[in-house]
Amino acid sequence: MDPAVVESYHRDGFVLMPPGFLPGTVVDRIAAAVPGLLGNDGPERVMERDGVTVRSVYGVHRQGVVFPAVVRHPVLLGAARTLLGGEVYVHQSKVNVKAAFAGDQWDWHQDYVYWLQDDGITRPDMVNVAVFLDDVTEFNGPLTFVPGSHRHGVLAATGRDGMPLGYEDAPGWIATLTADEKFRVHTDVIAELTADAGMVSPKGPAGSVLFFHPNLLHASVRNMSPGRRAMAIFVYNAVGNAPRPVDSPRPAFLAEPDVRPLRPGTADLIGESS
Amino acid sequence: MDPAVVESYHRDGFVLMPPGFLPGTVVDRIAAAVPGLLGNDGPERVMERDGVTVRSVYGVHRQGVVFPAVVRHPVLLGAARTLLGGEVYVHQSKVNVKAAFAGDQWDWHQDYVYWLQDDGITRPDMVNVAVFLDDVTEFNGPLTFVPGSHRHGVLAATGRDGMPLGYEDAPGWIATLTADEKFRVHTDVIAELTADAGMVSPKGPAGSVLFFHPNLLHASVRNMSPGRRAMAIFVYNAVGNAPRPVDSPRPAFLAEPDVRPLRPGTADLIGESS
Repeated sequence: MDPAVVESYHRDGFVLMPPGFLPGTVVDRIAAAVPGLLGNDGPERVMERDGVTVRSVYGVHRQGVVFPAVVRHPVLLGAARTLLGGEVYVHQSKVNVKAAFAGDQWDWHQDYVYWLQDDGITRPDMVNVAVFLDDVTEFNGPLTFVPGSHRHGVLAATGRDGMPLGYEDAPGWIATLTADEKFRVHTDVIAELTADAGMVSPKGPAGSVLFFHPNLLHASVRNMSPGRRAMAIFVYNAVGNAPRPVDSPRPAFLAEPDVRPLRPGTADLIGESS
Repeated sequence: MDPAVVESYHRDGFVLMPPGFLPGTVVDRIAAAVPGLLGNDGPERVMERDGVTVRSVYGVHRQGVVFPAVVRHPVLLGAARTLLGGEVYVHQSKVNVKAAFAGDQWDWHQDYVYWLQDDGITRPDMVNVAVFLDDVTEFNGPLTFVPGSHRHGVLAATGRDGMPLGYEDAPGWIATLTADEKFRVHTDVIAELTADAGMVSPKGPAGSVLFFHPNLLHASVRNMSPGRRAMAIFVYNAVGNAPRPVDSPRPAFLAEPDVRPLRPGTADLIGESS
């Protein structure tokens, strides 16, 4: 990763790398692994409010052979190490589907507050690495960022009590995974930040890789288009920032207990080595 | 209106005119009249599902002095006459607010089917004229069109039975005015049309005027931005296309009973004449 790219990441809180940064064969391997992942009916799978459309699958870096290899791919792992300044591991991972016509919004939020409050991670020394599995356009619910907002730390937010609508009988940890955000950043804070910095929706073809800071304020609207907007998101954490013990640890597919540094490798990415 | 503009309207089903097409003083007069309009608690006012945010106010061409004059303004009336090829009147009008953070989506739909089924208007010889009262951007829920879709007539759709969620106790006519569209165009039809023609979200500064055909397939996502996206929409109908009698006529603020041709004038637009 070029020093200018790293600098822009630290300034804006995000940077978008074009297709080719991560080899296309790796992207193809990820894309091919997704349908099987979505078909597995387990607690890792979170549905939309409609109960029939897959919204997300969590803990993908622990499943099968492709994703565990992808998070160790030298390009992604190297970039995460560069951005975080040392050894890293994957604390959380997911495929967010945002299905055609049905993929619901994600309201304004920062990611880090969940990892702080639920998982005992004391510093935002983390990075989201999102691999676009479909073209991201203005029409399919792109991630929308407030540039530089990560430099303001954890923003004033109001917690929601109880379970989100439509998930009343679900396990407690679902409260942080639905369209109804548990922590709502105050609207006057959002208005103030956007008045200065505006908003940006990074768009690009499938295979692009978007890096963004865990304190970057972001949202995305519903996908009303006839095309899916899936991405695989790997959340790298600095090894020196491993979680402290919490009273009610979340399941391993939401909060990785193995905090040993990842070693680079491509062994199981057959498509690439062949 | 330039013949090339008229031709592009008939080809694409919409055309966006920049600020200045309608004099800025007229836009200012409309904008100044909106707050009073939103404050009136009557059946013309439709709230969002949250029950506290104004979604739309209907029948604005029948209220106060500004809007009745605006629909007679030579620029708008002249354009409607050109596009419809003769005498016109306003069948329906509204201010759609799409409030900051709260303005909800409008799912994929065509407008005309409501005027056909609810009001007995037998031909789509109508035009929507939308005056932007705020800048329309990619972030505040712009109207999204499938270009040329108006040339396919009334598309296959499934009707929703009963009242939309959150409006169960409301009068029957509310069923067509909420985020939960009464007629849902089949998703395979939308996918097929967009595969050929794509999607377009016309964007522009406040004061722009967007003309679009009543059979143009359109939608808009929620407004998650900190800025309002209000527009005034006037639906002109050809005088020769006046409604036929229906069993349960809608209130006059939804279906204008006075079908006499409008005459151009600017008498009450003091801001412009001064």
